[in-house]
Amino acid sequence: MRIRFITTGGTIDKIYFDALSQFEVGESVVQHILADALVDIEYDVVSLLQKDSLEIDEKDRQLLRDYIEADDATRYVITHGTDTMPETADALSGLEGRTIVLTGALTPARFRTTDAVFNVGMAIATAQVASPGVYIAMSGQIFDAGAVRKNRTENRFESTSL
Amino acid sequence: MRIRFITTGGTIDKIYFDALSQFEVGESVVQHILADALVDIEYDVVSLLQKDSLEIDEKDRQLLRDYIEADDATRYVITHGTDTMPETADALSGLEGRTIVLTGALTPARFRTTDAVFNVGMAIATAQVASPGVYIAMSGQIFDAGAVRKNRTENRFESTSL
Amino acid sequence: MRIRFITTGGTIDKIYFDALSQFEVGESVVQHILADALVDIEYDVVSLLQKDSLEIDEKDRQLLRDYIEADDATRYVITHGTDTMPETADALSGLEGRTIVLTGALTPARFRTTDAVFNVGMAIATAQVASPGVYIAMSGQIFDAGAVRKNRTENRFESTSL
Amino acid sequence: MRIRFITTGGTIDKIYFDALSQFEVGESVVQHILADALVDIEYDVVSLLQKDSLEIDEKDRQLLRDYIEADDATRYVITHGTDTMPETADALSGLEGRTIVLTGALTPARFRTTDAVFNVGMAIATAQVASPGVYIAMSGQIFDAGAVRKNRTENRFESTSL
Repeated sequence: MRIRFITTGGTIDKIYFDALSQFEVGESVVQHILADALVDIEYDVVSLLQKDSLEIDEKDRQLLRDYIEADDATRYVITHGTDTMPETADALSGLEGRTIVLTGALTPARFRTTDAVFNVGMAIATAQVASPGVYIAMSGQIFDAGAVRKNRTENRFESTSL
Repeated sequence: MRIRFITTGGTIDKIYFDALSQFEVGESVVQHILADALVDIEYDVVSLLQKDSLEIDEKDRQLLRDYIEADDATRYVITHGTDTMPETADALSGLEGRTIVLTGALTPARFRTTDAVFNVGMAIATAQVASPGVYIAMSGQIFDAGAVRKNRTENRFESTSL
Repeated sequence: MRIRFITTGGTIDKIYFDALSQFEVGESVVQHILADALVDIEYDVVSLLQKDSLEIDEKDRQLLRDYIEADDATRYVITHGTDTMPETADALSGLEGRTIVLTGALTPARFRTTDAVFNVGMAIATAQVASPGVYIAMSGQIFDAGAVRKNRTENRFESTSL
Repeated sequence: MRIRFITTGGTIDKIYFDALSQFEVGESVVQHILADALVDIEYDVVSLLQKDSLEIDEKDRQLLRDYIEADDATRYVITHGTDTMPETADALSGLEGRTIVLTGALTPARFRTTDAVFNVGMAIATAQVASPGVYIAMSGQIFDAGAVRKNRTENRFESTSL
């Protein structure tokens, strides 16, 4: 069992700079989360992008798809901003033999109260247990790519099927 | 999608009483973990036991099995002390049509650094994604019941298969 | 021994709204900090302003001074944004018989790692122990009003005397 | 301004070992607390004892007094278990020219919710501001040595004067 983490930025990695009163994407917190959680499987962490997901465009998504297609791993957890996570999930569909789980956070991981740790836990489990395919792990739920949207008003992910 | 949580005690729920310098099982933290993680699925939490797992005996395991057998849910997350978690997982095997995931924590959930939140995240994902059966979600890994042990010296869960 | 807390906004009370990617002043965290710290003295909390300290102007400072002048308490802790905390301290000098301590945070109190809790601890002690006057409690140090500045480059408070 | 921290053990430094289900005094957390709080004064940390305060005896108190008497610093913060903190405060009285503040925690610093950080904040401020003497900083209050007791039933420190 081996899992490759790919970080792309997003709220999960946001940090706050008081001097400028800015709130920007910083170093990924994924390794800290895995260490604190006493994770004892083989994994590595690759940082491909450091962007707000509103700034992730089709070129970035192609880069991500090309990276995975040329790569030898079979299980991926991708941390990603929440606003366009469903679009990136769609762009990764159809990569045979890969289990790909996207996750992120509605509240930065550096906050005292955050969904980041729980969400990465959901993602690492799904990457191990689910059949090949693309999934989103958010709001306590595992969604199939193509059947999920972010409801910004309610600040949650939900199924698009009725 | 609906998940029933059953709490039985264990390190995950331990609290510290300074007056007596004791460290005892307290109210379950599961609901706080799910609220902080912005979980938005249907769930309920049933407290069946409040015990150190070294004190859980065959009668307790039979109670747990009988409860699930008579119950109408199909997906369960059971929080449990780590020392005898594998034994309880074994005692629950063979309950048809149920996906049962046991989890807990090596460090109490009330600590600043803990594996509890991550582990409950793994468990909730596994309960949704895995086929019916009994699983343990610990140390960043999803184990099948019957193929896992706690390595006390290394303070981790590991596979019993070579 | 009785202490009156006055909150005026600032980084200490900042919260993050993902939907809008904004970072704004929210409800004051002072009561939570005092409860978590098991504070067992008489106190109350008055919210006079909810502003970034860059937006606090002379009218606000006059309001604050008038409030304290007309008030019957003798010991005050004021939480305030850091950028103009020294200016507000100056504006409160000369109020006879009052011990007034300003504090705040370089990192929001809602972060996992923050100076907020420690700083409020410093302030509550200074309000009890120091002679009447105006003080700033930041960066692990108690400064006299009029002899302190924020060094934005280094992100710390320092003495203006050599 | 320079402060010497002396650590002696106690609940503030307690850690939990799951393997043995023990809860013991560990490495002092004082340096972590000061770093997280962005403390920017000169200080050092000396570890003299690592004991539950119920195990601190007259010989230990004499050691502590001798250490300070022979030392060249003038401002001290001593972290100490809560059960016999008042006794140790008494044993340090009368050391001319020294401001000595004892503090600790009713809940270990490694907990998510703890009074440790706030209490060290109170102590560092008192060590700077108070006149020479011996003080206890607990329960949000600064007490004079000799006029304070721990109320174990209520889990708080209180004045012995009426």
